[in-house]
Amino acid sequence: MVIRAIAVVGTGLIGTSIALAASRRGVTVFLSDRDSVAARTAAALGAGRAEAPAGPVDLAVLAVPPSQVGPVLAELQGRRFAHSYTDVASVKSGPELAALRHAPDPSRYVGGHPMAGREFRGPLAARADLFRGRPWALTPSHLTSDTALGRARELVAVCGAVPVVTQSQVHDDAVALTSHVPHLVASLMAARLREGPDGVSRFAGQGLRDVTRVARGESALWGDILQANAASVVGVVRDLHTDLTRLVSALDVLALSQTQTQTQTQTQTRDAGERARAMGTLVDLLDRGIAGLSRIPAAPSGAPDDAHRLRVACDDAPGELSRLLDAVSGFGVAADDMSVESAHGALGGGLDVRFGADPALADRLVAELVAGGWDAGRENGPGHGRREEGRVVPVVRT
Amino acid sequence: MVIRAIAVVGTGLIGTSIALAASRRGVTVFLSDRDSVAARTAAALGAGRAEAPAGPVDLAVLAVPPSQVGPVLAELQGRRFAHSYTDVASVKSGPELAALRHAPDPSRYVGGHPMAGREFRGPLAARADLFRGRPWALTPSHLTSDTALGRARELVAVCGAVPVVTQSQVHDDAVALTSHVPHLVASLMAARLREGPDGVSRFAGQGLRDVTRVARGESALWGDILQANAASVVGVVRDLHTDLTRLVSALDVLALSQTQTQTQTQTQTRDAGERARAMGTLVDLLDRGIAGLSRIPAAPSGAPDDAHRLRVACDDAPGELSRLLDAVSGFGVAADDMSVESAHGALGGGLDVRFGADPALADRLVAELVAGGWDAGRENGPGHGRREEGRVVPVVRT
Repeated sequence: MVIRAIAVVGTGLIGTSIALAASRRGVTVFLSDRDSVAARTAAALGAGRAEAPAGPVDLAVLAVPPSQVGPVLAELQGRRFAHSYTDVASVKSGPELAALRHAPDPSRYVGGHPMAGREFRGPLAARADLFRGRPWALTPSHLTSDTALGRARELVAVCGAVPVVTQSQVHDDAVALTSHVPHLVASLMAARLREGPDGVSRFAGQGLRDVTRVARGESALWGDILQANAASVVGVVRDLHTDLTRLVSALDVLALSQTQTQTQTQTQTRDAGERARAMGTLVDLLDRGIAGLSRIPAAPSGAPDDAHRLRVACDDAPGELSRLLDAVSGFGVAADDMSVESAHGALGGGLDVRFGADPALADRLVAELVAGGWDAGRENGPGHGRREEGRVVPVVRT
Repeated sequence: MVIRAIAVVGTGLIGTSIALAASRRGVTVFLSDRDSVAARTAAALGAGRAEAPAGPVDLAVLAVPPSQVGPVLAELQGRRFAHSYTDVASVKSGPELAALRHAPDPSRYVGGHPMAGREFRGPLAARADLFRGRPWALTPSHLTSDTALGRARELVAVCGAVPVVTQSQVHDDAVALTSHVPHLVASLMAARLREGPDGVSRFAGQGLRDVTRVARGESALWGDILQANAASVVGVVRDLHTDLTRLVSALDVLALSQTQTQTQTQTQTRDAGERARAMGTLVDLLDRGIAGLSRIPAAPSGAPDDAHRLRVACDDAPGELSRLLDAVSGFGVAADDMSVESAHGALGGGLDVRFGADPALADRLVAELVAGGWDAGRENGPGHGRREEGRVVPVVRT
């Protein structure tokens, strides 16, 4: 089974990106949008033809807002527009329920959610590689046919994405945590900026930009998404509210003790205990945050997971470490992948530098370093026994 | 007045980056750290000499945690380590107060805060260009001498940063909003991930990564920072708590109506009003977030601010718009900078494409497009009068 012809209904960022990817893989793509200029723009980008198919296509992709999936699906199925149907809405229980209730043949529909986006929208922002390597949820109902699921899987493959087949409610609970609540948190933070003093923007850095970036999303579309997933979202938000309430109390104590550091009072000992507890609450929250981050898969690092560990003895004269960095950079090793320790413990002598190298390149890298005058080798080679004497200066992700 | 020799006390990410920048500009830099391997690592990177200066340096840069600035300053001034002193702590009122109270000569000290960082720490993560183009707060007290401020300004210039001279309390209020509360918000969100169901990580995308990224910061250091700025931080956090409390109520209503959509009750009309109000609360928060984002200076865009507006008539046949994109890409114009409308209104004919071009390149670009067969020109040239007939498909930042 191979999908030969698809229809993309809704040529915004997501629909047009799917259409571009499919067209490049030789699939015939028919494009439509309530806004005909959007469909023609997508066509002019090479995403397909801005015309209606003559007969039923293999798969119709409904790239419309969550609340429109049900009505559009029912309407298209009523006129035999396609053999199978999927959508791209970021909530899945609601569309599934609508399909089960109102679609002429729910077995032909499987929910879908490609988990990628950009901070731009509209067909001009589309990219054929938008979904490459990204998860794409598929949420078959108990009625979804193998054929419908198979065609949706083919679409995911055509787009280079990674299929994640799961139940619609499992999906909705997960994205409440990974997407919908993060959006609300970004909005809550960004809303604070409105009331900040003038000149605040002079102090805005990358951290603030990152925390608030997703809050740019269209409020009407996001209102639709959040309403559709309110039950899952509110569970997470309520726990967050509990943490925040505790945090406000702790900060109140710390703020008060900040202004009172001068005053010696009888209650000083009690205050000290209260301050320590407040600080404990604060640091506990920060630590739980760090622990939570371990649930997010790490971004790709320069050092491959199965890297071979190398060790180089490096003089600690000015610039020597930079010279080593230059020598290894051509092999994909960056300073961020290295650790440094004292070669002879305490203060004397040089530095022991350790890092992971691509297994395929490790031997050549060692040979080049040795040829360049360095004492280099595998980490379990000469010099390794000294490790416990030295003090390690790792580069630490903070 | 030119700084010839400085000492960097604390060779972590920030201290070593400053030392690298200064060394590259010919300044003599002396490096020290409680951890001698860190200082030697910085020296081996070319950041300076891991030794004590023979006599007083022009400027000592205290790259130590906020709570250490006061004690280290007093100790160094006591032995005439430098003529002037500055620090890099991310809170400024506390260190200033400590200097005024405990330093032998507070006139020689000016608070400083370079507003840049990385998600890595330690000397190996240092970059000479870490501060280029970034704001660097300088917070002179009423006692700070012009000489001390002048030397700190020179350091800022040497690092390529943008000095922002302000009062310590103004700085602390601003960074509470732009840095400290965003950190707490990221931690609150990341802490939720700990309790999420298994498999949540399969759904983690760039949005979640961005919102939570800064939560990686060391909890001990950040506890120190937040405690030192608790009074400013709690004001912002309390307002955020108020918004969140309202949000929980609104989501509760929406979640309830989600589960009750099937039930016809006498209270339906009242419920509809309640739902509408809840939706209003939700969308209002999202809109306030979008409004708040306008306080953050936009990241650099492909189109220069004073771009000349060009217009090109483009056939809407498959791939024609891609051909135009290829033609203009060499001139720094990207799809994200363009808008498209129907050339003749409604459905007929081609597309009118508009975009900004570098003023210095605009004429050459138009000439090349015309030579390539396109109908191209300035936006106020032929064809502009048609604009109101067409429907605009802009690329919209969301």
